[in-house]
Formats: sequence, structure tokens, C-alpha cells
Amino acid sequence: MSKPIILVTNDDGIAAPGIRELILIMKEIGTVYVVAPDKPQSGMGHAVTINSTLRVEEIYSDNSSFEWACSGTPADCVKLAVNEILPKKPDLCVSGINHGSNSSINILYSGTMSAAIEAGIEGIPAIGFSLCDYSHNANFKAASKYIKKIALNVLKEGLPKDIVLNVNIPKADENEIKGVKICKQARTYWEEEFVKRVDPRGQNYYWLTGSWNNENFEKGTDEEALSENYISLVPVQFDLTAYSFMDTIKNWNFSI
Amino acid sequence: MSKPIILVTNDDGIAAPGIRELILIMKEIGTVYVVAPDKPQSGMGHAVTINSTLRVEEIYSDNSSFEWACSGTPADCVKLAVNEILPKKPDLCVSGINHGSNSSINILYSGTMSAAIEAGIEGIPAIGFSLCDYSHNANFKAASKYIKKIALNVLKEGLPKDIVLNVNIPKADENEIKGVKICKQARTYWEEEFVKRVDPRGQNYYWLTGSWNNENFEKGTDEEALSENYISLVPVQFDLTAYSFMDTIKNWNFSI
Repeated sequence: MSKPIILVTNDDGIAAPGIRELILIMKEIGTVYVVAPDKPQSGMGHAVTINSTLRVEEIYSDNSSFEWACSGTPADCVKLAVNEILPKKPDLCVSGINHGSNSSINILYSGTMSAAIEAGIEGIPAIGFSLCDYSHNANFKAASKYIKKIALNVLKEGLPKDIVLNVNIPKADENEIKGVKICKQARTYWEEEFVKRVDPRGQNYYWLTGSWNNENFEKGTDEEALSENYISLVPVQFDLTAYSFMDTIKNWNFSI
Repeated sequence: MSKPIILVTNDDGIAAPGIRELILIMKEIGTVYVVAPDKPQSGMGHAVTINSTLRVEEIYSDNSSFEWACSGTPADCVKLAVNEILPKKPDLCVSGINHGSNSSINILYSGTMSAAIEAGIEGIPAIGFSLCDYSHNANFKAASKYIKKIALNVLKEGLPKDIVLNVNIPKADENEIKGVKICKQARTYWEEEFVKRVDPRGQNYYWLTGSWNNENFEKGTDEEALSENYISLVPVQFDLTAYSFMDTIKNWNFSI
């Protein structure tokens, strides 16, 4: 059987330590095509570039990997990869390893997960990987064996149409990681705060900041698993319909 | 009973005809606070501004409305409005009227819907409105009575925690609109194409383009309703967990 073709992308940019580690892991499994942003794109959500042009440049290749840097968002990278760069549809798309958590509702803001979801829309089995450590020198190697195992599982078993995986890795050494737990998305959220400052010309400006309110996570959630040093794996769907509420709202009166 | 406080935002920018119409409709219902992007932010998805500063400027007020223009994304606008600008938590957040459809998977790319979802995360009942007509001179008045009715319903009945509404309006005159249909999100998608060009210095660049593949929509979907000149209303959740797949994936072997 020929080696699988694996598309690797991220939102921290092609030079980030997290994607470099992910590339190394994927080269053990298949032929790797990297199409990733040429600069950090954190917090871009599922942004796409429709009002300006996109650039993409091949920056490296060897016998098992090919790397392109792209001026666009993570979702742009996946679209460009699939439609313009790759020789055929990839067998797997992996995004990450993100510098920082994409657990709970962070998934909504995550460029890493948007890339995975974009691949899912294109019909490609896809996984987003994130490490709960924002530091540049985070230990991206601790979970390497698990990342490889999860990727091999997806290559073997496939994923249902319209489902991708959101994998978060605790900040821990290899021997402290207890394994992989299948979880639901927690309901924890950010307590936003804006820092208000005055610029040298006397005008106000703001910095968005805040603290992560994860004290009251439910059982079975990704937050719980991570707090216990498990890797959390949440299967994610992008049909956002709230089916449970459809019957209720059908009784509302919308006549004018 | 005091008039409800309504937060109005969008992703096309505060000067767009769509939000101007939405403001007029909401002023019939309550006291309106507008906090909207100072420039178009279409396709921004759920982007948030974390690596640069935010500006916000009051640009207009009268006895029933107050308007601020913000340098950030739609999600930024909601965060700033709730945390810094509004005197109290609003009773309702409406986003739009978007210039163009946010039906089907367009919701994932939509700044309009991200603003509504952001409000939902903040615990505010929220609705995104979009008109399936991209033209600047689209008929934003045709559905005014329905928009008002939907907003009044939400103010009266409330919405469950973690659910917001995605409302799309067909391109039609008022007397052609048949009413409101409760729908699920269709699975239609974009067939992307990239237009490749060469710049004056001989370098390649790309434009993202594509066609909307909505020929094979299922029954009961927003695409079907819109094709029949109904307003589609999809209740939307932002717990993305694919519960249906959890049992299957629990049988995978993740031991290393």
C-alpha cells in the first residue's frame, strides 16, 4: 500500500515549534504536504480571504515532505492546498500543534480548528491538535506518541462525513500523561476584561484580555480530562442545528 | 415595563444599508445601542483581536439610539459593547442585516453569525439576520415586519442558554415572502476555485472564488425554505460535540 498523503497546517505560522514537531511526527507515517500561514494567525476563527489576494510560496522540500508558506488564514491554506497545490486529495489533514488550548468554547475562535473543519467540509478526515501551554518553548514532544496513535487510528478507521476531531494535550511531561479520553466540549468561558489606555495623542484605545473561567466544568468534558492530565479528544460536528429546540420554536407565532 | 435594551451589530460595517434598516426596525421596539465595525469585516468568521489594539468611537446619538464605530471584528464589537459601553446587559442582540446569505455552512465563515454566537456565549438572546442578495441596493425593507416579529418573539419567550437564531431572508419582494420556516442547516457547500494571476513583477497570486453548490439540498433545510421564498430560521448551538460518534470512538485503541 502506498504511503498516505498528509496535509499539515496550523494557525501559529509555518515557523512555529508546534507545527515543526507535527511535521516530524507525520513524516513517520506518510508523505507530508505543509501549507501553512507565513505568519501567526491566532484568533482568526474561520476567517477566509475574499477581499484581497493570496500568495503561496514553496519554501522547502525533501524526499518525504513539501512545504508552502501562504499569506492567508488557516482556512485559506486548506482551500489552496486542496484546490491548487496537492497532487491529489489528502488522506488526512492535521492542524497544529497549537500553542495554547483549544478546549471548550475556544474552538470557536481557533484558527487551528477552523483549518480542521475546513478540511472536514472538503471531505478529508481531519484532526486539530493543541497543547495547553502558550510558551514558545513548550514541550511539544511529550505527546508525540499519542499524536501518532490518534492519526493512525483516523487513517485506519476513517471519520464520518461532517465530523472532525479536536485534540487537546495537557501541559505535562510524557510520563505524566495518563492517556486519551473521549470527551464533550465544556461550557467554560472567558471572563473578558478590556484594558483601557490613552495614546500619546490623547485618544483611548483598548486591549482585549481576560481570565479563563474553568472552575465549574462538568464531568465528561475536555476541561475535566485536561485537569487530570489526560489528552482530551472531542469529536466535533459542523452542523450547528440545535435539533432539541426545533419543536419548541415551531410553536412560536411568526404571522405578520 | 421599561423598553428593552437592544444591541445591534453586523459584519458589513456600521454604514452598510443592512444595519441601517435593522436599526430602524429595532428603534420601534426598544432603546438601541449600535456597536459595529467601522469598516467591512465580511468573512472574518469568529476572529477576535488579541495582538493589536481596539478603537471605539461614539458617532451618533438621539433619544432612542446610541452608535459606536469599532475598529475590531464583529466578535470584538460584542465583547466591547457588553464589557465597556452598554449601561447594562442587553435584553437582545441582533446582528445584520447581512449583505448575502448565511444559510447552510456559510454560518461557519460568517462574521454576522459570530457576533450573534458571541452574544449567546455572554448569555444574551441573539439573532443573526441575513438577506440572500449581495447587492448594495438590495431590498432590506421587504422582510422588516418579519424581522420585528422574530425579535419580539425572542424578547417574549427568551432562548435557551447556548442557543441563538440564524435567520436568512430570500431575495424577494414583501408580498412574495411566504412566511417563516423553522429549518435545519443544509449540507450544501462551496465549489472553490482559485483564479491564478501574475503580478507586474512576475509573481503568482490567487483570488479565492467559487460557486455555491446548492442543487441537492435536503428536505427541511434552510436552503429548501429559501428556494421556496420562505424566511429560514435555524436554531443554532455552539456546543459542537458530535455526541452520536462518541460511543464509536470510545472503542478505538489509543494505548501507546
